[in-house]
This record gives sequence, C-alpha cells and structure tokens, in this order.
Amino acid sequence: MGHTHPTVADASDITIGPIRGSHKAWVGTTGPAGEPLRVPVRRIELTNGEHLDVYDTSGPYTSYTTAAEVHDLAVGLPRLREDWSRPHAVPADPAQPSSPRVRTQLAWARNGVTTPEMAFIAAREGLSVDVLRAEVAAGRAVIPANHRHPEAEPMVIGKKFAVKVNANIGNSVVRSSIAEEVEKMVWATRWGADTIMDLSTGRDIHLTREWILRNSPVPLGTVPIYQALEKVDGDPTALTWEIYRDTVIEQAEQGVDYMTVHAGVLLRYVPLAARRVTGIVSRGGSIMAAWCLAHHTESFLYTHFAELCDILAAYDITFSLGDGLRPGSIADANDEAQLAELRTLGELTRIAKGRGVQVMIEGPGHVPMHKIVENVRLEEEWCDEAPFYTLGPLATDIAPGYDHITSAIGAAMIAQAGTAMLCYVTPKEHLGLPDRDDVKVGVITYKIAAHSADLAKAHPGAQLRDDALSRARFEFRWQDQFNLGLDPDTAVAFHDETLPAEPAKNA
Amino acid sequence: MGHTHPTVADASDITIGPIRGSHKAWVGTTGPAGEPLRVPVRRIELTNGEHLDVYDTSGPYTSYTTAAEVHDLAVGLPRLREDWSRPHAVPADPAQPSSPRVRTQLAWARNGVTTPEMAFIAAREGLSVDVLRAEVAAGRAVIPANHRHPEAEPMVIGKKFAVKVNANIGNSVVRSSIAEEVEKMVWATRWGADTIMDLSTGRDIHLTREWILRNSPVPLGTVPIYQALEKVDGDPTALTWEIYRDTVIEQAEQGVDYMTVHAGVLLRYVPLAARRVTGIVSRGGSIMAAWCLAHHTESFLYTHFAELCDILAAYDITFSLGDGLRPGSIADANDEAQLAELRTLGELTRIAKGRGVQVMIEGPGHVPMHKIVENVRLEEEWCDEAPFYTLGPLATDIAPGYDHITSAIGAAMIAQAGTAMLCYVTPKEHLGLPDRDDVKVGVITYKIAAHSADLAKAHPGAQLRDDALSRARFEFRWQDQFNLGLDPDTAVAFHDETLPAEPAKNA
Repeated sequence: MGHTHPTVADASDITIGPIRGSHKAWVGTTGPAGEPLRVPVRRIELTNGEHLDVYDTSGPYTSYTTAAEVHDLAVGLPRLREDWSRPHAVPADPAQPSSPRVRTQLAWARNGVTTPEMAFIAAREGLSVDVLRAEVAAGRAVIPANHRHPEAEPMVIGKKFAVKVNANIGNSVVRSSIAEEVEKMVWATRWGADTIMDLSTGRDIHLTREWILRNSPVPLGTVPIYQALEKVDGDPTALTWEIYRDTVIEQAEQGVDYMTVHAGVLLRYVPLAARRVTGIVSRGGSIMAAWCLAHHTESFLYTHFAELCDILAAYDITFSLGDGLRPGSIADANDEAQLAELRTLGELTRIAKGRGVQVMIEGPGHVPMHKIVENVRLEEEWCDEAPFYTLGPLATDIAPGYDHITSAIGAAMIAQAGTAMLCYVTPKEHLGLPDRDDVKVGVITYKIAAHSADLAKAHPGAQLRDDALSRARFEFRWQDQFNLGLDPDTAVAFHDETLPAEPAKNA
Repeated sequence: MGHTHPTVADASDITIGPIRGSHKAWVGTTGPAGEPLRVPVRRIELTNGEHLDVYDTSGPYTSYTTAAEVHDLAVGLPRLREDWSRPHAVPADPAQPSSPRVRTQLAWARNGVTTPEMAFIAAREGLSVDVLRAEVAAGRAVIPANHRHPEAEPMVIGKKFAVKVNANIGNSVVRSSIAEEVEKMVWATRWGADTIMDLSTGRDIHLTREWILRNSPVPLGTVPIYQALEKVDGDPTALTWEIYRDTVIEQAEQGVDYMTVHAGVLLRYVPLAARRVTGIVSRGGSIMAAWCLAHHTESFLYTHFAELCDILAAYDITFSLGDGLRPGSIADANDEAQLAELRTLGELTRIAKGRGVQVMIEGPGHVPMHKIVENVRLEEEWCDEAPFYTLGPLATDIAPGYDHITSAIGAAMIAQAGTAMLCYVTPKEHLGLPDRDDVKVGVITYKIAAHSADLAKAHPGAQLRDDALSRARFEFRWQDQFNLGLDPDTAVAFHDETLPAEPAKNA
C-alpha cells in the first residue's frame, strides 16, 4: 500500500454488527465465465417466519460481530474483484474504427462483452444482464469501478435501476486515526449510502483517501480540483493543467472511482452569473471562474479535456461532469448560466464517450417544483441521456436547519423524472459541518426520496418492502414493522417513549 | 362561558413573545362598510434596514412580552369578530328560488355580498376581495368561521390562496390545567399552523375544547363522532343519529369552525376494504363501518345528511367530508374503496352547497408519487372543485420514525396539484403520541411543503421570502439568514454547534 500509519488502526472505533432484526446474507449468481459470484443482501427476518432481502451497501462491517473479527484496516478489505477476469481492451466505440482501444465498462458493453461486474450488478438489481449491458452501452448507465479499487462491490447508476444515494464526507480538522476516518464511510454506508464522495481538504488528504478507499465497499468519488488547490496553497489563479493532471493521476492510482470535473465553466459563462441573487455557489465552479477571469483564458479543464479523458479511460474512472454554475437559490434556477453550462456538458459527454469514458452529469441545487422536470428533460436531450446526479434540489430556500427536507421534496421529484443518483443534504446544510447524527438523518432522508421514486417508477420488487411493512403494521406485528423500516433503532425508540412495555409492542 | 375551571389558569405555561428577529405588526385595511380592520403580520427586521412581513397565525401570543400581559385564559381572547357587521340571511343558492335562507360565507358570496371576513382575508392573502368572493361563491374556497367563534382571525382555504397547514392536537391523559391544553394550540400556531383539529378523547373533551376555542386565533376543527362514541362508552354499534346530532349541536354552540363527517362510508363500500393490505385505517371510517355492518343499515350520517347540513348552516360551520376509506398503505392507494367513497362525497357536496353549507373534502393518506395527481383530478371532477384537504400523503411506507418526511414529499406534490390544506404528520406517526418537539417539527415540515407548493403555483409574493433569505446568505448576513427562516432558533443552534463565535456569524 505504500503509506505510513500515523496511528494504530483501532477497530473498536468502527460500527459493526447487523442492523436490528436483520443479518447479512449472500445470494449466488454466476459471472460470464461461469465463475460463482456472491451478491450481498440484508436479510430481515420476520416474526411470522418469512424474510425479506433488501439491497445492502454496508460491506462486511455488518457481518462482523466483535472488534476482533474486523479486518486489518491498514491492509484493507479483501480485494473482491482482483480475481475476476478482466476482458481485453476493445475499441472505445466499435462504430468508429479509429477510436482508441480501452478497458472500460462502456467500451466492453458497446462491444457486447459481459463483465463479471455486470453479472454481479444484474443480480443485485434483479434485472437481466442484457438490459444492464444495453443501458451501459447506450451511456444511460455507468458502473463506477476503477481497476485499482478492487475492494468495492460493483453497482450501477442509471435511470432503469434503483435510484442511488451519495453521501459526502470530509476529514477531521485535527489529525485523526485511520479508524476515525474509515468510520465516517462505514457509518454512511451502514444506513444505505451507495457511493461516498471524499471532500477532504488540508495536508492529509492523500492519506485519508487511501484509508477510505482500501476499506470502502462502495465506489468513492472526489473533486480533484480541491486537492490541486491545496498544492498551490489555496490560490486558484496559481493552478495549472500540469498540477491538476498530476493530481488526477495520483488519485487515479489510488483507486478513485469517479471524479467531479467542472469543465463546463467556460470563460464566457462567468459574466452570466453576475446578475444572479446568489452568484456562483459551487466551490469547484468558483475556483475555475476565478482562474478563467484572472488569466482571461479558457478553462484548462476544457482545453485539455481529451487528454483528461484518456487518463480516466486507463483506469475506467467515471466522469461526474460538475455543474459549477448550478443555482444557489430559487431565484437562479434554470437560468442562462446554468443552462449554458449544461449544453457544454453535453458536448463534453460526447467527447468522453467517444474515448470510451463513462459519464454522469451533475445537476442542481435549488429549484422550485415546477421547474424540476425541465432539468431532467434538458439534461437528457443535451447530454445524450447520461445518468443525472443531482444535489437535492431544494424546493425552497426558507428553511435553514431543515434542508434535508426542503431538498428531499425536490430529490424525490427529480428522481421520479429520471435522475439516477441523489447527493444527500444534511440538516446542517448552509449552517455548519454535519455530525454523525446529521449524516444518518441525511442518508435516511435520501433513501426515502430514492425509494419513493423507485415506487413511482415501478422498479422491480421495490414495493415488496412497503407491502411487507404495511402488512406487519396492520397485523400489529410491531417488531416486524420496526425492522422493515429504514431505521429500526429510531422507530423502536420513538415507540418506547410513549408505550414502554414490551407486551404493548407485541399486542 | 358557563364552564368550571378545574385549575387556575397559569399564563406562565404559555409560550409568548415574538419569534427571534421579528415582531408582530398589523396592516390596516377596510371592511365592506368602510370599517377599519387590522390584519396581523410577522415583521422580520433585517440588518440592512429592510424588513419583510410574513403571514402570521400566532394571534396575540407573540405580541405578549411578559406573563402578566397574557389575557385571562378563563375568559379567552378578545372577540375580534363580535363587532363586525354580519349580513342578513340570503338564499343559499340564488339560482334556486326554493333554497333556504342562510347566513354563511358561501351564500353571501353567491349573492354578491362582501363580508368583513372576506375583506380581512383578501388583505391577508394579498389578493383582491373580488377574486376571493368569486372563489368562495364557486365553492372552490371556504372560510371556516363559526358565528360562535368570534375570537378567530378569518382565513381562507382554497387552491388560489396560500396552501394551509393543519395541526392535530389531543388532550392529556391525566386531567390537566387550562394553560397546558391551551399551550398545545399556542405552540402549533406559533410555528405556523393555520388551523387546529382537536382530536381529544375521554371525559373532559367538552371542557378541553372550550378552553382551546376561547383562546384560539385560528379556526378549530373536530371529528364529532369521537365525542359521540364517548357517550355510548366506546361501543360503535350503540351510536344513533340522535346522539350524534346532539353532539354536533353541542360542538356547534361552542364555536367549532369545521367538522369532519365520514358520511361517505356506505354499507355497500365496507366489503371493498376487505381485500386490502391495511383495511380501514381511518378511526371515523372504522366506527361507521362497524355501525353499518352491525345494523346492516345505511349509515345514519348519510341518511340524515340534509338535516345535518341545516344544523351546520345555522352556525356557518364548514363540512370537512371525511375519507373514512382512505388508503393506509401504498398498496391500497387509489383503490375501488377509496374512489367509491370519493364519488359519494361529491354527491354530498352538492347537497350541502345547495343548502348553503361550505364544504371541503378530505383526502389520503398513503399514495405513491405517480398516483398523487390523479387524486386531485378526480376530487376536482367529482366534488365540484371543493377545497381538497389531505393527510400527507406518505409517498412510501418504509420509514417509520420519518413519516413527516415521507409525507412531506407527497404533501408538496399534492399541494402543487391543487390541494388547499395539508394535515401535518409528525415523526411519531404510527409509533406513538407526538410530544412538543414532534409537533414543532411536524408543523415546520408542513410549512416547507406548503411553501414549496406556493412557489410552484406562483402565489403572489411567495418568492419574496426565498429571495430575501438567499440574498442574506450570499451577503453573509448570517442573522438575517437565520431570522428569515421558518425556525430561526434551530438555525442558530445548528450554526453555533460548529462555529460558536459571534464574529463568525457576522463574517
């Protein structure tokens, strides 16, 4: 692994053990070469003898029962995908004879090659591998899986599949232990985060990221410009393509699965944000806007985009094309700045896909309900249906302290309209840094939004959980009602507050 | 008042004083006879010298600064509407010469009479009184204002107006003081509840209701069948029309502004609920279904409906036609039982309006997102666009402990589609009785849903608050950002957790 350990890994800092009323189980399937694959599920055992398997993002942590069982955090999780066959390089676009030969899920899918990752995911989603491969080939779905992150359990982001949730985590202000940083990821994935974005800053970000990657059962995303900025002591005007490129390669080597790149913030779009109520609120957008203005030159992310594509293709890293000009308020939603950038993201999508790189598109932000669907419609039209990945959006600005809720409304609606992944928002949004409870509330709230959209889109099997819980409720099987919920601990605690006696729960 | 006081009213139990950063103010307008009317607003003072007035439901409680200023709770609030002119009786339906002469806002509106209530509300909503009167005349809006509840500040429920929020309260298990019961109403209206439903049960409900009514600045709703059931010791089969009628008259005399009546649960609909996942979940629906089955007779609420209309007309009480067969789970949404009842509510709406009684229609419940809009469409089509008043709906069943959120998603969407009032859901839904914090979270969550819909419907002036807050956010006017929010106290607390120093907030 090649990194030093500033402190000893202490597994007692890691949350382990199953969620109440359930246990980890595995469902068998086979890979393209007939190899056996084990897909994790969370099995909820019911008091009537039935059980329900639900999608599980928690990795081995929920199967450990004592700290002694926890793997060595300094070594990392078992490298699940290391033994899987990896097909040969194929033309990025078989319709274009001159296209480069690459080893990405997009290129394989386009060339009709089924990968072990595809087989694993098809079983995980309960859909046929043919549908999955077709969606990836069309660029309507992505499988963020860096060759150098073999610890992760493959998953798909696309509108035909279960809506996914991303949780952001950041490093601690003071230098902390490996277990403390890993625990943030473990905590978020325990409650259902499908991917994690590491937004750490400061001197230790390389090491923090290494710890998280080696121990993460889910794909990890980053915003490389943040680390590049650290390398120039926080002065955006001192950034160069070379510094940025080297940072991307550094992170690619570590195993980052998807990267946010704000390559659509063009010099000519920056003035469009001047008339806004809230200007540019994206950190990456602000950095690139400052660079463009200072140099009065087109963004190096845009001018070097093809070169960047080839780096990402070499690892099969997925682009998350950032919306640096996303609206930061209801007033700015769907404005000229936002939509100009979105058109450019479409142009970049075609370049990336032509080089075999998987792409998703980031979206807003703050949007009133009547303007939400238009975001999806334009994204699909302009960006060739690349998976949409939105931050909320918040449906109103007037509730600081409750922005998990203002944004869950927007998130559910935008997911129903076709958004494939939702970046969570916590109650601390706009006010401060989320603590452990905030992260949990944020993830659960976004699982609600995502699942509500799955129901509305009739995702196969989604309603089984609602039906099982409602049947338990109607039959007064209280334990089953608690355990079938997204957060059994809270349900039990709320119930016990008013009716503490055990007989009441079994009544 | 005619009731005894089991304990002395202690004003120190009542939450008083303005919400952080604001103070009560009044905006002048004039009634139809030129009489001056004062419309309450909450004035938020900003650090840049500007201010923003927002809709205020809190009555005088937010203008008191010490317990000594609080009015005598045993006497009640000043009788605001007592001195207002009340027009003469007019034909319930001027197009039908044989229709009874009544004194209701519906009949006056149909006869072109503007009431002081209409003038007050038009100023409160920022819309012309002509629009308001036309909406009331068409039955698309209601003004729940019992002649015998003069303490309440008039408000309107209708899809052309700001979406309203109802909060349910219940009495304490042990006999409590007047101040304790009044405080529940004061607390909910402080955070923005537009109406209160008193769902109290037990021996003291008459007295509890009297306390609340005399001290409530907002309309009060009840479900009279609950009290009727107390009178027959909880045996639904022992209910009779006479017992029910006398209960309605008792509550009407006290000043109840709107009443939930489950008159659409017909004998022939009860078997439709047998195939459901969650049967009949409405308490009123269950009571009436039990009665119908036991007697194998049509519901007395249905067979005596015209008589009931005439009682309500005499006081100008508004019907809230209950959805006793509402779905209690995603699986049961929009099913035959629900829709059969809705058609009957339409028939009852026409009977009530023909007798001059204002009507709103209650709606679900639990509905997946893709089936929400159909609820509004059918309600408008079958019930002549009577204002729709829904409980959520919950967009998924899988999150007990978070049903304020599962339902806020559905509530925002159904309000955008035209629902006029939302009945709140607290985090304790399905699990236990809400405490004070739950009530606040429930109200704030529903204000978010209602305001999001106001934005989406372009309600005049709704976006001013979002814009003011976002401008404050962009300009780092932290105090203004906190104070413009729905819950300044929570915003400040969250901010202080991570950045405790005062300079940071002014940065």
